[in-house]
Amino acid sequence: MRTVRTVAEVRELVRAERAAGRSIGLVPTMGALHDGHLSLLRQAGAACDVVVMSLFVNPTQFNEGADLDAYPRDEAADAQAARSAGCAILFAPDVKEVYPDGFCTTVEVAGPLTSTLEGAHRGPSHFHGVTTVVTKLLNMVQPDVAFFGQKDAQQALVIRRLVRDLDMPVRIVVGDTVREPDGLARSSRNVRLSGEDRARATGLSRALRAAEQAVVAGERDADAVAAAARATLTDFAVDPEYLAVVDPETLAPRTEIDGDVLVAVAARVGAVRLIDNVLITTTPNGRG
Amino acid sequence: MRTVRTVAEVRELVRAERAAGRSIGLVPTMGALHDGHLSLLRQAGAACDVVVMSLFVNPTQFNEGADLDAYPRDEAADAQAARSAGCAILFAPDVKEVYPDGFCTTVEVAGPLTSTLEGAHRGPSHFHGVTTVVTKLLNMVQPDVAFFGQKDAQQALVIRRLVRDLDMPVRIVVGDTVREPDGLARSSRNVRLSGEDRARATGLSRALRAAEQAVVAGERDADAVAAAARATLTDFAVDPEYLAVVDPETLAPRTEIDGDVLVAVAARVGAVRLIDNVLITTTPNGRG
Repeated sequence: MRTVRTVAEVRELVRAERAAGRSIGLVPTMGALHDGHLSLLRQAGAACDVVVMSLFVNPTQFNEGADLDAYPRDEAADAQAARSAGCAILFAPDVKEVYPDGFCTTVEVAGPLTSTLEGAHRGPSHFHGVTTVVTKLLNMVQPDVAFFGQKDAQQALVIRRLVRDLDMPVRIVVGDTVREPDGLARSSRNVRLSGEDRARATGLSRALRAAEQAVVAGERDADAVAAAARATLTDFAVDPEYLAVVDPETLAPRTEIDGDVLVAVAARVGAVRLIDNVLITTTPNGRG
Repeated sequence: MRTVRTVAEVRELVRAERAAGRSIGLVPTMGALHDGHLSLLRQAGAACDVVVMSLFVNPTQFNEGADLDAYPRDEAADAQAARSAGCAILFAPDVKEVYPDGFCTTVEVAGPLTSTLEGAHRGPSHFHGVTTVVTKLLNMVQPDVAFFGQKDAQQALVIRRLVRDLDMPVRIVVGDTVREPDGLARSSRNVRLSGEDRARATGLSRALRAAEQAVVAGERDADAVAAAARATLTDFAVDPEYLAVVDPETLAPRTEIDGDVLVAVAARVGAVRLIDNVLITTTPNGRG
């Protein structure tokens, strides 16, 4: 595995691979790799000839300086994990390489995709930071395919919209959420959960399972499905920032469970903000 | 020359050319071709193996509906002119192909580059419209080089910044302003100038020449240089929206003529809004 820190270097490596007829997969990360990232790297390796992983803790998408400061960083461990999962090129630029002096351009996806759920709670600048840096990373590396995780379901929708709206020549693949044995969605922030909070954190995935079970049992009223999830959160002493039953493409609120719905939750557990979601599929206008 | 109307078609043609080892030049236009465009097409043909011209009257960069409605359109004449100037692929998408339902992404360059001069007088949405459509056109066609005209000096600076900030893999070339024999900068809007206004319109280029002559004669005070230009505008009964002596890279106002300066002017002549500019070069800290 080669580690490079400049746009010029990563482009030169990618150009050589492409000239040799090889396809390029990009897995953008902020480091602190967990099994979710490694799953994406393996998926990229199965779909593409060469896997590039970017490692860049993007300051512009953090709405709280404390969250940015607390974000775990261990490049040596990340490099070792990435290599073991099949990464061939590790692109780890510093902040000045990504945002040189005079930088003043922003890419914004407007509307419900960025103003609801995470956008409402973290502020609109969060997704502007994401879409700007993703546009840059895609232009820097120019992959054939880029891989994102379903744990950040809203982010994945925003990026699909971004790529479609700006006609970016790349295919977006969204990999399944990877979970701990007890159901907690893998996240770089999980390492900051202390003993008791770690147990409470399982409340999010349990709540989503409760919602799913309500639908499987025949419930079609979105409020009732949400209430089942909220009851579970209460059992775990977790007070959600939001728990929403929404359309999985537009994020518009749904009142009835008919066809696919996305149930998304965000909550602070101790000092750590966690998110999770589940896509629930039913037969449209029929029995689930 | 092939004429295509969809992103899929232009990409297929470009892919085939590139696979054959040929370089691609893009000249983005809004049609109504004049000698300035033809000069860019010839410049593209000299620098690249295959010249693509886009023809799209972008509604999002017009701040006045009347200006958009009055914008001259004659695709048959444009196609003939483009072909004669060496264009191989004419990409003429309709509005729905560029902005399909659900489109909601904007690319914005912030700061003085977009807030001063044209940005101050046409409103910030003008340049947001330009940067968004240029990002899309560059992604649609994926040229090696894209060509813009120096007549729109501020637009060229904004696009250079856009491409640098978003790490777009394209080289930007800015072609010299082409003028009528009497000095009027070629513009698609010139055809809307009536007899008397056509004569008054030469005041803009004459004023810029007066500014240049003042500098050549030794004037180093920017206000005095601007005053010389304004006096000429008055002679032609032209009241400028702005006449500015600015840094040619940052567009910051200059008080002293030292090194290169850009003198830019905008004015309504009858019903037509015209712009023009001149880059004046002096020896820094010495005699011009």
